[in-house]
Amino acid sequence: MKTMNSRIDPSRMGARELRDEIAAERLTVAAAAHACLARIAEREPAIGAWAHLDPGKVLAAAGALDATTRRGPLHGVPIGVKDLIDTVDLPTEYGSPIYRGHRPGADAAAVALARAAGALVLGKTVTTEFAASHPGKTANPYDPARTPGGSSSGSAAAVADHMAPLAFGTQTAGSVIRPAAFCGIVGFKPSFGAIPRAGTKLLADSLDTVGVMARGVDDVALFSAVLSGRPELNRPGAAAAAPTIGVCLTLPGAASPSDATLRLIEAAARRVEARGATLRPLQLPAGFERLIEAHKTVMAYEAASALAYERLFHRAALSPALAASLDDGAAIDPARYDAAREDAKRIGATVAIAMAGLDAVLAPAALDEAPLGLGATGDPVFCRPWTLLLLPCLTLPAGLGPHDMPIGAQLVAGLRCDARLLAIARFVEAALS
Amino acid sequence: MKTMNSRIDPSRMGARELRDEIAAERLTVAAAAHACLARIAEREPAIGAWAHLDPGKVLAAAGALDATTRRGPLHGVPIGVKDLIDTVDLPTEYGSPIYRGHRPGADAAAVALARAAGALVLGKTVTTEFAASHPGKTANPYDPARTPGGSSSGSAAAVADHMAPLAFGTQTAGSVIRPAAFCGIVGFKPSFGAIPRAGTKLLADSLDTVGVMARGVDDVALFSAVLSGRPELNRPGAAAAAPTIGVCLTLPGAASPSDATLRLIEAAARRVEARGATLRPLQLPAGFERLIEAHKTVMAYEAASALAYERLFHRAALSPALAASLDDGAAIDPARYDAAREDAKRIGATVAIAMAGLDAVLAPAALDEAPLGLGATGDPVFCRPWTLLLLPCLTLPAGLGPHDMPIGAQLVAGLRCDARLLAIARFVEAALS
Repeated sequence: MKTMNSRIDPSRMGARELRDEIAAERLTVAAAAHACLARIAEREPAIGAWAHLDPGKVLAAAGALDATTRRGPLHGVPIGVKDLIDTVDLPTEYGSPIYRGHRPGADAAAVALARAAGALVLGKTVTTEFAASHPGKTANPYDPARTPGGSSSGSAAAVADHMAPLAFGTQTAGSVIRPAAFCGIVGFKPSFGAIPRAGTKLLADSLDTVGVMARGVDDVALFSAVLSGRPELNRPGAAAAAPTIGVCLTLPGAASPSDATLRLIEAAARRVEARGATLRPLQLPAGFERLIEAHKTVMAYEAASALAYERLFHRAALSPALAASLDDGAAIDPARYDAAREDAKRIGATVAIAMAGLDAVLAPAALDEAPLGLGATGDPVFCRPWTLLLLPCLTLPAGLGPHDMPIGAQLVAGLRCDARLLAIARFVEAALS
Repeated sequence: MKTMNSRIDPSRMGARELRDEIAAERLTVAAAAHACLARIAEREPAIGAWAHLDPGKVLAAAGALDATTRRGPLHGVPIGVKDLIDTVDLPTEYGSPIYRGHRPGADAAAVALARAAGALVLGKTVTTEFAASHPGKTANPYDPARTPGGSSSGSAAAVADHMAPLAFGTQTAGSVIRPAAFCGIVGFKPSFGAIPRAGTKLLADSLDTVGVMARGVDDVALFSAVLSGRPELNRPGAAAAAPTIGVCLTLPGAASPSDATLRLIEAAARRVEARGATLRPLQLPAGFERLIEAHKTVMAYEAASALAYERLFHRAALSPALAASLDDGAAIDPARYDAAREDAKRIGATVAIAMAGLDAVLAPAALDEAPLGLGATGDPVFCRPWTLLLLPCLTLPAGLGPHDMPIGAQLVAGLRCDARLLAIARFVEAALS
């Protein structure tokens, strides 16, 4: 008979700690599930992180995991799945009434990989409508009057509020980084394509990237290593030694971040410098300012295509804002779209040169603390260029702003330098802790 | 009351002709549907092109099209939809018993765009298992003892056999070009991403491309213009004047095409030259031979990810060949995959330079006529490099081989030069007719 570790509430544990406690038979999967479900029962009315939750199913799956001798690298770790990602045993509504009660015929590839590694799916987390702008019901755990960010709103809130140690997000503009920053957790958008997208509702085919959220860098590393099949991402404690970091406080073409954001990113820079990092200002190449508009063009054009069925046959069930933005996207001249993609390719090559001597770039994750109100999820401008360039990005908490809301420090590395980015993130996390 | 054109069997008409006859009220959509259904009833027992067909539903939809005053650019044109592509009103089984009776929650974006343009969905055409190698039931209309090619087997056979004037295909290696060539029709794989993929089952995320089939270049141009939202593709009759065409008879790293194939491609080259084209041998850059292996690596690695759910949770329902090939893909070192993609990028840049002075490349579509037997669908080797490089490709009939089976001439152009490729194809089609 397994015995429970009653000293610590399992919902406070990270993924790695939970996994290790379960492996050491100090904790059952059922106990971990009970703890998360209890936390959800307590907090969900205020936070609204979940689109679908079936506690009976969770406990049955937990019991099955406790009964099996197969032990994957996520054995017993509860996860939240953004409701943009298909699950065969739970409704998947993509944040839209068009798909009310929709049951996919399969798990998304990433969900299948997580389950095969032993993860316990708690439920589906709230997404904005099709991962675009129209928000769901979720509130920010730090202040329920403020947005948790979007589009991975429920995942960020659930992880921040200790309802789950891990959750899936997706990012097309800033939908992993921004909500993670607003909720004070770690969000990791790997290089484009590193985690398989099959079974994830498309918004913009050349941009959509599956990402992950947790409360620490080693946990996003563990999860993303499993999902990408890249064990080199999962080197707990392997922080970079004396990295060279480019600092990028503002972006041409974007509004300036708030004073509090600038202060916290500058403070983070000083702390990593004190720990041995070399800092340099990032020299943005000419044309960088065009990336923000290019991202908007590519995203709007591709969204109008990807959501053609919904736009053409279920228009009345779209939010007015999405309907209008899909119309705008459908009206974009293909030549303008092609030019935006060519621009991204050309400018991306010069950005790669500018980043060549750097281990990572340190930048704000968002313009400010999470804004007041649940009617909008904030501005992704500080993510648009990096997402357009397909680069791996990670945010970690840099401190609290004037309203005691979290502010995120974003790290960006070169394409497919995901392992290096995680090593830098461990270094920065240690410096800031 | 509309009157019918009784002179010509509508199933013999191309898409444009049908559309024009319907627009001129010389033909009803119902009559066009009846003609295709009659042809299917006659030939389907021998050919097996269809995975799902509901004549009652087709006739009801045809009646609705006849009753509406809205006239899209495909008004009343019957189409076949590869059963890899989701349809909300017909089962979508992806060629796999795992999805027997599966009903998607939405139309794929490309299907929605076709329907919104007035196309009449006849039914779902047979695909190989998940668009990989394991064949479906379809036979080649030119000789039912021979394969129609794959993976878009049913679409190619249906169009060739006058069951439908247009059909959807998808290509990850050679799945549009090869079956179209084997069945003696025109197949067009546009530049990667030109037709939206939302709602198409993923096989290899960085390769999968939606394409189209018809019996003439102007018809694939019409269909792809609608689906891509690029009206410049649809310039009927706009053939290139005096193009420069690079000839590429063999590929390094591939078996040599059959003598008949070489003879027909050379004859095609002489005929386009006689019509004013300038011919040049294509100078393949160093490293080109690595593209075939690189394609195999990328495809196998990504398929193991994209089909993770099926591989991990429905293994017993996979064909043994697919199960083994997914295992192989899952065992590929990510560093090898990354290297293959880097190789493709680097070699692709030199191929672009080699093609810079050319309007298109002329090459075999496949090694030979369609092989005997329905147990395999042929070798895609003559498509792998171009698909890996994301380039637009088109095949059109070059003549018959020693067994009176069609042989295709493949044309390839630079990335996003789709309109130019179609203009060249019209030129070649005229030269060969």
